Amino acid sequence: MTTETTTRYTVAVIGGTGPQGKGLGYRFARHGHDVVLGSRAAEKAESVAAEVTERLAGVDGAGSARGAANGDAIAAADVVLLAVPYDGHDDLVASLAGALAGKTVVSCVNPLAFDKRGAHGQVIDGGEGSAAESAARLAPEATVVGAFHNVSAVGLWGEDAFLDEDVIVVGDTAEGKQVAIDLAASVTGRPGIDGGKLRLARVLEPFTAVLISINRKYKAHSGIRVTGLGEH
Amino acid sequence: MTTETTTRYTVAVIGGTGPQGKGLGYRFARHGHDVVLGSRAAEKAESVAAEVTERLAGVDGAGSARGAANGDAIAAADVVLLAVPYDGHDDLVASLAGALAGKTVVSCVNPLAFDKRGAHGQVIDGGEGSAAESAARLAPEATVVGAFHNVSAVGLWGEDAFLDEDVIVVGDTAEGKQVAIDLAASVTGRPGIDGGKLRLARVLEPFTAVLISINRKYKAHSGIRVTGLGEH
Repeated sequence: MTTETTTRYTVAVIGGTGPQGKGLGYRFARHGHDVVLGSRAAEKAESVAAEVTERLAGVDGAGSARGAANGDAIAAADVVLLAVPYDGHDDLVASLAGALAGKTVVSCVNPLAFDKRGAHGQVIDGGEGSAAESAARLAPEATVVGAFHNVSAVGLWGEDAFLDEDVIVVGDTAEGKQVAIDLAASVTGRPGIDGGKLRLARVLEPFTAVLISINRKYKAHSGIRVTGLGEH
Repeated sequence: MTTETTTRYTVAVIGGTGPQGKGLGYRFARHGHDVVLGSRAAEKAESVAAEVTERLAGVDGAGSARGAANGDAIAAADVVLLAVPYDGHDDLVASLAGALAGKTVVSCVNPLAFDKRGAHGQVIDGGEGSAAESAARLAPEATVVGAFHNVSAVGLWGEDAFLDEDVIVVGDTAEGKQVAIDLAASVTGRPGIDGGKLRLARVLEPFTAVLISINRKYKAHSGIRVTGLGEH
């Protein structure tokens, strides 16, 4: 197991004021990365960044957190985490496509729906699509990967040094996946796991609905680990 | 953790001569259940059952394994494990619908496709279906649940007492799910996990494609564990 950060990234978090974005931003910054929380309104992002910065005080080797409007956040970053609700996702990505060109974009977007039977996955492109694939189509000059779909916002903002779960990363280039594999170590204490091609985001995204069902039944914050790999 | 079997089931395994069916049948019998491996041809099922029986020799508390034609296997059983390839699945289930009436049917069918980009899930009913849901529709008087999708056939037939992974069970009745939750203890050493409604089989089935991708990349036999539940 290694928790060393070999590369120090500047990560823009789009949706950085939501629980998933704020929690992941906090974890990345805590482990030495520089995080720019993005929001439509810079003031809101700055206020959440101040909360994150407060939690970084006294943490050895911490990076930094600041807030900015989405476009400015992206401009400052090598890596962009998309942590927005699926509702409005396509329009937002399309509007940011120019800024995203040339960046590595990590999507943790979960297109879920809820009814009286619980959570389930939204059907995208007749079952042949996912939020991550939509982002890749709408921002064709970005390198889009999928990761961090299944980590619990509660755990991310909690006190444990690391979350007892794995981050599975999907994407169509090894370079893009490596960024998310590296960043995963900030969250779980070990590298993310290469889970194959981007289209498998069709599975990882709605898997969150299974974890939500488990959480309701067992009153837990569940995650998944991949067994059988030894040290990877 | 408990490995006690509270209920001794008679389980018919449809597709009992394939690696998944044979491996699960072996595990169930090893832990005290009575297994009837089913096949279109009784002789083939009997020959595979003899292989399983050989491995049960000297195992304390083992149940039994025998072979039979599919219809006879189902008639003898309380519980039916569907462990057939997805290709031909619907026709087979439709042809067995009468025999399946009143039974608990556990589907571990994985509708996968393979191309040069690897494994991925087949799209069923425009993304709003799964093999398990198809079985429920085609055998409306059976109680269909989904489970055991992600356990590796290699591990099932291997030497380890238990597999280091979890079995997630989905279904629309608590009674049906309880059967698969009980049977899971034969495989993993602890009860299966209630993962919610049957429609979430849409996620569990193609998740196997992610594990296949991981296996190729890491030269492993991977599985998943659910974290955060404590002892459940």
